[in-house]
Amino acid sequence: MSLLVVGTVAFDDIETPFGRAEKIVGGAALYIAWAASYFDPQVRMVSIIGEDFPDHELELLRKRNVDTDGIQVVKGGKSFFWAGRYHHNFNSRDTLVTDLNVLADFDPVLPAHYKDSPFVMLGNLTPAVQRRVIDQMAVKPKVLALDTMNYWLNHAREELLDVIKDIDLLIINDEEARQLADEYSLLKASEVIHQMGPKYLVIKKGEHGALLFGEGQVFFAPALLLTEVQDPTGAGDTFAGGVMGFLASRVKLNFEVLKQAIICGSAMASFCVEKFGPEGLKNLDILQLEDRLQDFSRLVNYDSPVLRG
Amino acid sequence: MSLLVVGTVAFDDIETPFGRAEKIVGGAALYIAWAASYFDPQVRMVSIIGEDFPDHELELLRKRNVDTDGIQVVKGGKSFFWAGRYHHNFNSRDTLVTDLNVLADFDPVLPAHYKDSPFVMLGNLTPAVQRRVIDQMAVKPKVLALDTMNYWLNHAREELLDVIKDIDLLIINDEEARQLADEYSLLKASEVIHQMGPKYLVIKKGEHGALLFGEGQVFFAPALLLTEVQDPTGAGDTFAGGVMGFLASRVKLNFEVLKQAIICGSAMASFCVEKFGPEGLKNLDILQLEDRLQDFSRLVNYDSPVLRG
Repeated sequence: MSLLVVGTVAFDDIETPFGRAEKIVGGAALYIAWAASYFDPQVRMVSIIGEDFPDHELELLRKRNVDTDGIQVVKGGKSFFWAGRYHHNFNSRDTLVTDLNVLADFDPVLPAHYKDSPFVMLGNLTPAVQRRVIDQMAVKPKVLALDTMNYWLNHAREELLDVIKDIDLLIINDEEARQLADEYSLLKASEVIHQMGPKYLVIKKGEHGALLFGEGQVFFAPALLLTEVQDPTGAGDTFAGGVMGFLASRVKLNFEVLKQAIICGSAMASFCVEKFGPEGLKNLDILQLEDRLQDFSRLVNYDSPVLRG
Repeated sequence: MSLLVVGTVAFDDIETPFGRAEKIVGGAALYIAWAASYFDPQVRMVSIIGEDFPDHELELLRKRNVDTDGIQVVKGGKSFFWAGRYHHNFNSRDTLVTDLNVLADFDPVLPAHYKDSPFVMLGNLTPAVQRRVIDQMAVKPKVLALDTMNYWLNHAREELLDVIKDIDLLIINDEEARQLADEYSLLKASEVIHQMGPKYLVIKKGEHGALLFGEGQVFFAPALLLTEVQDPTGAGDTFAGGVMGFLASRVKLNFEVLKQAIICGSAMASFCVEKFGPEGLKNLDILQLEDRLQDFSRLVNYDSPVLRG
C-alpha cells in the first residue's frame, strides 16, 4: 500500500571521528524514503528543495518506485542546509550551521493522487506544517505516524500537542519522550503519552535500541553491534522509514506486526550508520536485509530457563 | 554444585531521589550470595567483617543454605562502610565516604572444604586479594568469574591483568570494558578482552541491559522496564550472583546456557533495584522469579519478519 512521506530534503556537511563529508544529500524525507523503499512499492514524497538539488539523486529514488511529484522545486532557491559535528562516542553532536533557505516558506501541497495514502509518515518539521498535511488528507489514514524534536517541544508545544492528539504512532527518542511527558521513567512516560493521543509509541534509544509501547504491552529491540559506525546522521529517520515501509507492506496491523516493523527499522538503521550520508541505503538487496534480520534473531533469541525450585 | 563467593560484606548509607537509608547491610558478596541462593543450594562466602556486623543478617543467608564459615570476624573491628548519593537519573553517583576499616588488612583464608568449589565468583576487590583466593584453590574451578572496577584499572593494572588471564568469565560494565580494552566499540573491546584470557565476557550496561560475548557469538539481554526504581546499589553484584547461581545449577556449560544465565541475572537485578539495599532479594519465591523470566520473554520475543522481495 502507499506510504506518504513528508519531511526535509537537504544538503548536509558532516564531521565524525571517522571522516568528513561536504554538501552531501540528506534530510529526513530522503532517509525515510530510501529505507521504506525496500518494503513498500509506493512511497510518495512531499518536500521542498532549491534549484541546486541534484535531480539524479531523486532519479535514484524514482527508480525504486518512489513518487517525487510532491517535492516542490523553488526556482532560484537554495535547499535546506545543515552542518554538524559528532563527538567521539557519537552520543552527542554540535549543530554548526542551520540554513533554512527554501524550507523557511514551506507550505506543503499534496498532489491529488497522494490524498488517499493509507500510511503517512510526518518527519520532523514545524508542527504547523505537519498539521497542514493532515488537513489535506481526503481519507483518514490507517496509520498516521510522526517524528519531532526537542526544539518544537520548547518553542511550539501547544501546536505540537494539537498534532500529536491525531497521531496513531509516535516515533521519538528517549530524551524527547521524557521531556514530552515530564517523566524520567520511560514506562511512566509512555502512559502519559498514550493519554495525549498516540495508540502506539516507539522510543528510539540510539545505540541502546528501541522500545515499542501499545495495547498494554512493551517490546524491546536492541541495536546491532557494528564493527564500524561511520556516521549516525539520518539513523533515526531511516529507522522510521523501515518501520513504516514494513507496516505499509502488511495486511494486518497489531502489536505483533509492529514488533516486526521495529526490527526492520533497526536493520535499516544499521545499514545507514555504516557509511556517510544515505550511501549505506543505496544498492541493498533483499538477501542482505534478510541476513541482517537473522543477526537480530541471533542477538536476542534464547530458550527460557527452566528453574529447579 | 558449589559456588564460592568472595567480596565485601559492609554497611552502606544510601541516598537516592526516592529516599535515604542509613547503615543498612550491603557489600558485593552479600548481594551475590543472596541472588545466587535462589539457584544453587551451596553458596560459600569468603569475606571480612567487624564485630559491629549484625549476625542475624548472616543467619538469614545461612537459612538459605549459604555457608558463612569463610567470613572472618575481626574482634573490636569495624566493618567496611560506604556512603553514596545517586543523581536524579541513576546514571551517576557520588561516593561520599569510603571507610575500609577491617577490609584494609583483608587476607582471605579459604576453609578447607571451600577449596574444591567448581564455581568461583570473585567480587570487586584489590587484584592482589583476588589472586590470593585463586592460589588457594585445590582444584581448578569449572568457571572462575571476576568483577572489578575502574579504580583497579587505574591503580593496579598489571596485577589486575595478571588475574584476568586466569579468568573464564569476566563480568564488568561498559565503561570498564572500554577502559580495559582501550576501544570505544564494545564489539572491538570484546575481541581485545578475549585475548587477555577470558573465554566469556559479560558487559553490564545498567538500565540498557547486558551483552554476552563468547564462542564467536553475541547475545543481548535488556533490562526490564520497572515502574519504580528505588535504589540501584548492588544491582551489578546481584546480576553476577544470578548468573553464577544459575550456572552452578547446570550440568552443561555452553553459550546457550550462558544466555539463560544472563537472563536470570537480569531478573535478579530487577528485584534488587525495586527496594533499598538487599531488601528486594529477601523473601522471593520461585513463582515470582518465573513470572519475571516470562516478562523478559515477552519483552524480546518476536516472530522473524518474512519479507516480500
